Amino acid sequence: MRRIADIKYASAVLQWDQETYLPPMGAAFRGRQIATLSEIGHELFVKPSFGQLLRTLAEGNDLTGAELRNVQLTLEDYSKLEKYPSSFVRKMSEATSAAYHAWIEARRENSFKVFENKLEALVSLKKEEAQLLGFENHPYDALLNEFEKGATVAWLDGLFNDLKQPLGSLLSQILDRPAPEDGFLKQYFDKDAQWQLGLELLKIIGFNFKAGRQDISEHPFTTNFSAQDVRVTTRIDEHDFASMVWSCLHEGGHGLYEQGLPVDQYGLPRGEFCSLGIHESQSRLWENCVGRSESFIKYIMPLVKQYFPQLENINSHGLFAAVNKVQPSLIRTESDELTYHFHVMIRYEIEKKLIGGSLPVREIPEYWNSLYQELLGVAVPDDKSGCLQDIHWSHGSFGYFPTYTLGSLYAAQFYDSIGKSYPDLDQKIGAGNFGSIHQWLQSNVYQYGRNFTSGELCNKVTGSPLQLEYFQRYITEKYSHVYQMPI
Amino acid sequence: MRRIADIKYASAVLQWDQETYLPPMGAAFRGRQIATLSEIGHELFVKPSFGQLLRTLAEGNDLTGAELRNVQLTLEDYSKLEKYPSSFVRKMSEATSAAYHAWIEARRENSFKVFENKLEALVSLKKEEAQLLGFENHPYDALLNEFEKGATVAWLDGLFNDLKQPLGSLLSQILDRPAPEDGFLKQYFDKDAQWQLGLELLKIIGFNFKAGRQDISEHPFTTNFSAQDVRVTTRIDEHDFASMVWSCLHEGGHGLYEQGLPVDQYGLPRGEFCSLGIHESQSRLWENCVGRSESFIKYIMPLVKQYFPQLENINSHGLFAAVNKVQPSLIRTESDELTYHFHVMIRYEIEKKLIGGSLPVREIPEYWNSLYQELLGVAVPDDKSGCLQDIHWSHGSFGYFPTYTLGSLYAAQFYDSIGKSYPDLDQKIGAGNFGSIHQWLQSNVYQYGRNFTSGELCNKVTGSPLQLEYFQRYITEKYSHVYQMPI
Repeated sequence: MRRIADIKYASAVLQWDQETYLPPMGAAFRGRQIATLSEIGHELFVKPSFGQLLRTLAEGNDLTGAELRNVQLTLEDYSKLEKYPSSFVRKMSEATSAAYHAWIEARRENSFKVFENKLEALVSLKKEEAQLLGFENHPYDALLNEFEKGATVAWLDGLFNDLKQPLGSLLSQILDRPAPEDGFLKQYFDKDAQWQLGLELLKIIGFNFKAGRQDISEHPFTTNFSAQDVRVTTRIDEHDFASMVWSCLHEGGHGLYEQGLPVDQYGLPRGEFCSLGIHESQSRLWENCVGRSESFIKYIMPLVKQYFPQLENINSHGLFAAVNKVQPSLIRTESDELTYHFHVMIRYEIEKKLIGGSLPVREIPEYWNSLYQELLGVAVPDDKSGCLQDIHWSHGSFGYFPTYTLGSLYAAQFYDSIGKSYPDLDQKIGAGNFGSIHQWLQSNVYQYGRNFTSGELCNKVTGSPLQLEYFQRYITEKYSHVYQMPI
Repeated sequence: MRRIADIKYASAVLQWDQETYLPPMGAAFRGRQIATLSEIGHELFVKPSFGQLLRTLAEGNDLTGAELRNVQLTLEDYSKLEKYPSSFVRKMSEATSAAYHAWIEARRENSFKVFENKLEALVSLKKEEAQLLGFENHPYDALLNEFEKGATVAWLDGLFNDLKQPLGSLLSQILDRPAPEDGFLKQYFDKDAQWQLGLELLKIIGFNFKAGRQDISEHPFTTNFSAQDVRVTTRIDEHDFASMVWSCLHEGGHGLYEQGLPVDQYGLPRGEFCSLGIHESQSRLWENCVGRSESFIKYIMPLVKQYFPQLENINSHGLFAAVNKVQPSLIRTESDELTYHFHVMIRYEIEKKLIGGSLPVREIPEYWNSLYQELLGVAVPDDKSGCLQDIHWSHGSFGYFPTYTLGSLYAAQFYDSIGKSYPDLDQKIGAGNFGSIHQWLQSNVYQYGRNFTSGELCNKVTGSPLQLEYFQRYITEKYSHVYQMPI
């Protein structure tokens, strides 16, 4: 397992370099180097002798509980991979490569039509994949399960349904109130000063620079090559202050999780993250629950003004309100904590119908645009700012989007538990003291790695399964404060 | 072969990252990741089925000349690796790892004694390796051949012997003359300005930043992950102007070679560099023949003064003389173009006697110190600035050092041929026009990759085998000019 991990992490180094430092002409050979490592890692994993070994170990009595769990989880992965005929793997790899290039081209031409055929082929393969993997009720369940073990259409339908109404009504209330002033966020902010501030913020929240680093990339991301080498990236827009700051905190949250995973479980499931939803809960907890709180902003305000004297006349409540402004918009990645989830619901609805067979690929733009009108009240002017905006489908990632919303929900529920453990949490944050949060996350989330599913973990550490009320309460309290509305 | 190359280059990316960006705690897992990639690359290469394929191809009639050459060279590597029993490979890997750590420790304690036992074990394994590889006359020949195909004790003894007398007499002449003023090189030179100047110089000599980049590392080096992704590194000493500038030109010369190797031969011998000696000839040609010439310095002088107004009162002859100052010293890597070769000869003598069995490891310090006294007239005060200064032995690299001198000799001989092809070479350089040099190197060195041995290449493109007279003439002319002596 550790040998396979070495290869997987080597491939991650090559991908990190590709996003940060690769000279342009290096791209072609880099592509084949990464592909070769993936193949070799895959070949080592799917060896029948390895499967036999796993089954022998799983059935024996020689292992400790922790060892057995590692074997069981590995066997789970192994059994899943066994279901893919190699001809299918090849077809899928070709189809995603074609779809990705078609998507790039379609964006350039601002036309979904250019993407349509390749996406159609990919969707049909994803349906085939659902059949290969197997499911009980809905074929989309099989794909959801790949990104968030145990997630199903039945569960998510209920969750999104219960979320839609309260979020919608909160949104209308908000839109009736005067919007906070946020024009000052769009002044000129020097690149180097932003970079330095970003590093300071990562240090403040506890990111360990002896076991990680930050670099610049076009799209911010976090990756790791062991729990002792975690790389976060950021991008800097000199005319947008908030973008870099809260993106740093977001990636920093992912990074803290990866630095907290058990080092001695390198290469083993218990050394891996729990699920995408839980990973996202960690980024959102630091970006939003902590980072967009008034106490946190009060704490960092002197530092912010030291780097940016142009914000001298802004007080911390003003910055707090500005970075929590709600504004229905076209683009998911630029949206606020509230409307974000409508973007996710729209993609979920579309994916579910695509995989279920009730929505033909050619009708995506029309359906997409009607949902944006219905849920967010915005008119989509073209495909590029509509259904071509996300890279996910071109990668064949159907079932990924819901994990973003799950991340916010888990974050709110975890954060509620942290607040119960430390009633003076707000004062602690205001004083820049994050030790208690680290301690809670370390002993309740990080240390378990992939030992539990996200559902099991949530139940174990918060005392109940995932429930909407925590997020609802969190978001209602926040926006009542920002928009000065009665709760 | 390309699959193996992918793994080899992936490992090179991990090593490059290790020297440039790796956070300190990442070192342990990075070590095992690199080790795993090496193992996998090795396993793929030594498969008996691969050897069988190579032999079938080599004996058949189906290949073009170029294809056949690739097969023959690969078979040569394969047959060599076949000679190593896996038990020997493991012993060697353990011994070098132990020796490396002992060397680090010995340097810290400034005591060769701490290194002695591990080095002894390593030398005894290197003797065993020489027997495994086989040789005609001297066991050291087998090791020399690993770094420079065809190099032998008989040949190098003659070469060094013929070099020692004229270099020694030139050195005494020089030491009788007043030394050029070079104190101004040791002022304060801002780091960022040095970095920018380094990038400009790389651009000036033609390094392609679309197919490569420069970064900072503790020890400057060049590596590549294809001919289209070549990474050079530099280090910056804020109290030494010359160190960064000529190190950039040196690594830039290595980098130009790697960028010039045939892209379509990726992973094949014809896509690899010829030999270490030829690689070093490329760095020295740009660093010394071009870079330390008065024409080149005249050309870059305005740029230098633009970055460093503190050099306003220095003229180009003054800078030329300063960076060509000859000074016998203790440390090889800091020495000038003349005394450098005495450092190499000393290491060569010691290695030859160690592998030949006439020098016990424990006597290295005494012998080292006596040779420094004899050849350079300097007294070695301690082991750290003496026989512990180089990393090579701790890596098991016996036979490497001579390639440094060979590099200078090949550079001078190539440069002589370039000068014959372009009689106005000096004017071209003075005008910043390096196209002719590139063209000559591309068609006489780069394009052949590893197709010829260094000896064959030299003969083919300069019309004669390696001869001392070119270097002697080059160095005599340079220093007569610097020291205003009659030739």
